Amino acid sequence: MPRVRPDQLAARRHEILTGARACFARYGYEGATVRLLEKETGLSRGAIFHHFRDKESLFIAVAQDDAAAMVATVAENGLVQVMRDHVHREDAETAGWLGSQLEVSRRLRTDPDFASRWSAPVDALATATRERLRRQRDAGVLRADVPIDTLAQFLELAYDGLVVHLAMGRAAGDLESVLDLVEAAVRRHTGEYAEGETDSSPLRHDARTG
Amino acid sequence: MPRVRPDQLAARRHEILTGARACFARYGYEGATVRLLEKETGLSRGAIFHHFRDKESLFIAVAQDDAAAMVATVAENGLVQVMRDHVHREDAETAGWLGSQLEVSRRLRTDPDFASRWSAPVDALATATRERLRRQRDAGVLRADVPIDTLAQFLELAYDGLVVHLAMGRAAGDLESVLDLVEAAVRRHTGEYAEGETDSSPLRHDARTG
Repeated sequence: MPRVRPDQLAARRHEILTGARACFARYGYEGATVRLLEKETGLSRGAIFHHFRDKESLFIAVAQDDAAAMVATVAENGLVQVMRDHVHREDAETAGWLGSQLEVSRRLRTDPDFASRWSAPVDALATATRERLRRQRDAGVLRADVPIDTLAQFLELAYDGLVVHLAMGRAAGDLESVLDLVEAAVRRHTGEYAEGETDSSPLRHDARTG
Repeated sequence: MPRVRPDQLAARRHEILTGARACFARYGYEGATVRLLEKETGLSRGAIFHHFRDKESLFIAVAQDDAAAMVATVAENGLVQVMRDHVHREDAETAGWLGSQLEVSRRLRTDPDFASRWSAPVDALATATRERLRRQRDAGVLRADVPIDTLAQFLELAYDGLVVHLAMGRAAGDLESVLDLVEAAVRRHTGEYAEGETDSSPLRHDARTG
């Protein structure tokens, strides 16, 4: 067998994850057969399962891959920035991928081993979100009257809502203003929104929170 | 054929919708065959399709039924109350039902006739939410610096997020406090959250907004 360089291995792994994500999105978790995974990635089952133990491991790796990208953005610019990026990205596969996750979510309740493998990437993101909020609070831009964990859960709720909104193909509306509102809700009130003000866009800030 | 009283018809219809919702939740839209719909409702296909033209009509009727119940709550107590009710309800079928909706959502982009049938209940809920917010603004409990439509979209985002949160079986966390935060974000700031306040529960109000 020819030797494969580490960067080639990483590139191959990335290629498989991209194809697998599209495949799960299109056919669902159950529907994504090994044959379809081969077709979508353009690789043989031997090549695919050289990198991932089984379909479940592949599925979890896709989720891990997503979470790692989000963790990097959250650490730098916060979860609201992840949401803003989502709004600007064309992603027809969001619906299908979320659908696959929901399909799999039933197993979370019945299969503790799967649940613990699944929760690792989710936990990493939760931790990054809370660390970022703690730094923001130390910097004095975050509201101080609500616990960090509640603010984090609020942002996570908004994030989930955005994913569904995009996945369901709902009217785009003015999502930017909605995200401004999300951001303002976790920020320190500096009193700039005086009562009765009718300016509709006082919420944008340079210092990003969340 | 024996004559059927209108209240019996309505009861039968309700019975079919309840069984169909469970069936779609368990097997997905595609997976919910006529045979499974018969089994879940305990009725023959003749009885089911006496009330609903076809599977698609049945699916849309389930969504309409959900929306009608929500519209009534929204008109009286607002969308945040719908969310609070969700949190307190045991609903193992939420995941499956949302999954079915996502499965169907692909057709929204490709089938304009389906899209218009599907959007009717969604529109009714959107209208009820905005009417409620307008009344709340007139009553002076709503913030005045953000357009009604943006506030409505914000609440809808939170609602979608809550449904996913429950559907994915995520850690319950302190959803009540998160919903307090959602509610506070659309409410008029009365200045009761002074800077630096550390009381963690200043958000609950008697006058419900949203």
